[in-house]
Amino acid sequence: MNAADPNEILDDEAALQLDANGNLRHLLTLKGLDRALLTDILDDAEGYLTAPGDLPARSQSLAGRTVGNLFFEPSTRTRASFDLAGKRLGADVLNLDVNTSSRKKGESILDTIYTLQAMHVDIMVVRDASDGVPAYIARHVQPHVSILNAGESDVSHPTQGLLDVLTIRQHKGAFENLTIAIVGDIRHSRVAMSATHALTTLGVGDLRLISPPVLAPDADKVPGAHIVDNLAEGIADADVVMALRIQRERIGNLDGIPGIDEYFANYGVSHDSMKLARPDAIVMHPGPMNRGIEIEGSLADGSQSVITQQVTNGVAVRMAVLDRVGKTMAAR
Amino acid sequence: MNAADPNEILDDEAALQLDANGNLRHLLTLKGLDRALLTDILDDAEGYLTAPGDLPARSQSLAGRTVGNLFFEPSTRTRASFDLAGKRLGADVLNLDVNTSSRKKGESILDTIYTLQAMHVDIMVVRDASDGVPAYIARHVQPHVSILNAGESDVSHPTQGLLDVLTIRQHKGAFENLTIAIVGDIRHSRVAMSATHALTTLGVGDLRLISPPVLAPDADKVPGAHIVDNLAEGIADADVVMALRIQRERIGNLDGIPGIDEYFANYGVSHDSMKLARPDAIVMHPGPMNRGIEIEGSLADGSQSVITQQVTNGVAVRMAVLDRVGKTMAAR
Amino acid sequence: MNAADPNEILDDEAALQLDANGNLRHLLTLKGLDRALLTDILDDAEGYLTAPGDLPARSQSLAGRTVGNLFFEPSTRTRASFDLAGKRLGADVLNLDVNTSSRKKGESILDTIYTLQAMHVDIMVVRDASDGVPAYIARHVQPHVSILNAGESDVSHPTQGLLDVLTIRQHKGAFENLTIAIVGDIRHSRVAMSATHALTTLGVGDLRLISPPVLAPDADKVPGAHIVDNLAEGIADADVVMALRIQRERIGNLDGIPGIDEYFANYGVSHDSMKLARPDAIVMHPGPMNRGIEIEGSLADGSQSVITQQVTNGVAVRMAVLDRVGKTMAAR
Repeated sequence: MNAADPNEILDDEAALQLDANGNLRHLLTLKGLDRALLTDILDDAEGYLTAPGDLPARSQSLAGRTVGNLFFEPSTRTRASFDLAGKRLGADVLNLDVNTSSRKKGESILDTIYTLQAMHVDIMVVRDASDGVPAYIARHVQPHVSILNAGESDVSHPTQGLLDVLTIRQHKGAFENLTIAIVGDIRHSRVAMSATHALTTLGVGDLRLISPPVLAPDADKVPGAHIVDNLAEGIADADVVMALRIQRERIGNLDGIPGIDEYFANYGVSHDSMKLARPDAIVMHPGPMNRGIEIEGSLADGSQSVITQQVTNGVAVRMAVLDRVGKTMAAR
Repeated sequence: MNAADPNEILDDEAALQLDANGNLRHLLTLKGLDRALLTDILDDAEGYLTAPGDLPARSQSLAGRTVGNLFFEPSTRTRASFDLAGKRLGADVLNLDVNTSSRKKGESILDTIYTLQAMHVDIMVVRDASDGVPAYIARHVQPHVSILNAGESDVSHPTQGLLDVLTIRQHKGAFENLTIAIVGDIRHSRVAMSATHALTTLGVGDLRLISPPVLAPDADKVPGAHIVDNLAEGIADADVVMALRIQRERIGNLDGIPGIDEYFANYGVSHDSMKLARPDAIVMHPGPMNRGIEIEGSLADGSQSVITQQVTNGVAVRMAVLDRVGKTMAAR
Repeated sequence: MNAADPNEILDDEAALQLDANGNLRHLLTLKGLDRALLTDILDDAEGYLTAPGDLPARSQSLAGRTVGNLFFEPSTRTRASFDLAGKRLGADVLNLDVNTSSRKKGESILDTIYTLQAMHVDIMVVRDASDGVPAYIARHVQPHVSILNAGESDVSHPTQGLLDVLTIRQHKGAFENLTIAIVGDIRHSRVAMSATHALTTLGVGDLRLISPPVLAPDADKVPGAHIVDNLAEGIADADVVMALRIQRERIGNLDGIPGIDEYFANYGVSHDSMKLARPDAIVMHPGPMNRGIEIEGSLADGSQSVITQQVTNGVAVRMAVLDRVGKTMAAR
């Protein structure tokens, strides 16, 4: 939606997110949110965790509010996660099936938003395949409405970034001493971007973004991170290894990677490649996984894996964010 | 479903709507509902309005009841509006995805209805592309079940009609002195039909239905309204101008209207055409809008526009109707 | 998912269903559940029945729990029935649209399940077209999670079996003296299989499974039942006649049954064929019906039909089962 420099866009979005009192109003990107705020959100999220089998944490902090899930790209896990987070805070949740929506009928996205706003849908959770859509919406809604980015093109997926750093903090404590390796299609990964933003703000020791050269990020988008094209080098002595999902159809087009076997051999996170990391390293993946492509199945199911914990943390950080923007709304 | 005279069908439907005590049981059409009842519903709806940013009005008047949304045509706004209206009255809301429904498997519509009825879905909200479906269903359900028409072919869309007259009343007060212009594809518009029914009952001063001749309604369907084929003539001194959505594919088939530009020039509601209306005239549209075809985008966003207020009123009138049929049910 | 002997699979599934204290944890098949447990569930279900027009029964026994509906085959009635059953017990219900789900993205079914489990979806209602999927899932979930089979290939549909025997018990009392005829495509019917399991356990007097020879079940799957290929013989003096839905596309491939008319003449449950049953016999059908193919429409709507009562009982038995597994979960 915008041909401007991507970092400028992100800076601009960052400024949009806080109200005049510095309270979180929208969550569009983790870039520009300061360490204190990120830490507060993670602390709040911890408060929403309960043991498996126990009842999940609940409150009525969003009672009377309506959360609208507007997923213009298909999603199971993120939509379900926001749906449950909203319901467990007492909100009404409206799931819009955008396959049968007005957008098909040629309605502009802003008209859809204005319609929902007029129905008192005061928190809108938006996923879209185009750059800049969540911020574009945030610039146009009424002052009491909050927009939460649930996945934006290759740009940003802030609640994923929060759940990732929460999971790392639970296992590894302070970020300063950590070596963190993110492996895969970094270039097209909103997950990698949001993790990078959060980890950089939180003062990560050494962040390595590992991919085939053609899937490496632009260096100016990831200041402070090391761009690495060799898995062994990138994963060496890492405390945390995060594998990213790769689109299968991309694989055939990579230099020297004619097929899945070659991709797995060169960039797959496996028991073999994990031997180079620290013995107590954790393994992460945002899901859904392509087992045998970017990650070895038995590793994903093994004792180093924290993948399902990431999912649990996902509901908790979404509750923390929803509760926070609800409080900002109520304080107006 | 019926080759009989359309006015007879409507008269017949009107009689179905009230129970033996004169209470509203179904809402199938606004035709035949008297002025006192329409006014009562509008008054109730006013009670459900709150300011943007305030919590929406809620009650528990439908606690324990189940509202089923049966949309056999796709819809975002009307389905969402009924969904929120039901939830805000404390009902359980069942949204049926009819694309994966039994109807595909060849089940008759009545069998689907009997199934829902047997599950204690006591209020069914029905949208269908065929004439007469809501009334056909209403004739077959058990005495305690209510059917609400959420859009029926070209025939009727009664909650839309109610939200339209509520919006007009809020801005213009008494209907007797008003000149109201509805512009567009009148012939195929259930919105225009229901607005016409309500405005006629409420004693509108001058109702003008403006369209290219081939899209004009049959005169006997709109007794009391003026059928006009010239926009300038129809809009002159109007207090209210309502633009209707037109199917883009219809445009090429209109005499003298080979394309979108010609349609907009001749029948588009624009800043230019609004100069002929009263200076304080309001602009309405049922949505979703084709900006630049039936309405000028900047007019829709301007100070005369009450389009988002229509949406807000939509939730309120649906709450009023749901609450009313719930009370009828409880009084049995 | 499994090439082993189907009876062994079912025995194995039966053992999975109860926890160490003999409480119901999963509901995968009715085979192997004893008479006392089936009777308890039916008794519980009776407690959830209210008259049409009265408010449906409600409780808060699942308050705080989340029920996830995972329908990998499309369904209206069973999904809606579980949805309402869960909501009326106070649960949050998550409906997953598997057409836009991660399964499309190549995620394994277990990864989907682990994701939901990590989100505190503690009761999962699963429908799948493949044999063994519910049990496969049940073997892999955490100890506090319950799996309910909502329809499994041709194998099993246990809540349907429960609602069927509840309906029979309401009308006919003790099973010992009853002659029950099930008519149609027995071979491919999970409905017939689950009814057979339940009726056999409950001590049915005479169970007759009637179909064209090519649609007859394997005898070893239905021990105790009589396999009959002649409708007149099978229906003679029956107290209960249950017609099954047949896939239209199967009809042309049956020996001596070139079309719908022949199928209806030979195996249709009609006023004519019912003359051979007892005068007070009841007529059942699991829905959705093909009127005029496996059942005569006017018979389905007539005084002998208990088809909509089956639907009502369906919500009640699902509430009884959900409540029961919730109690098992809470007792851990």
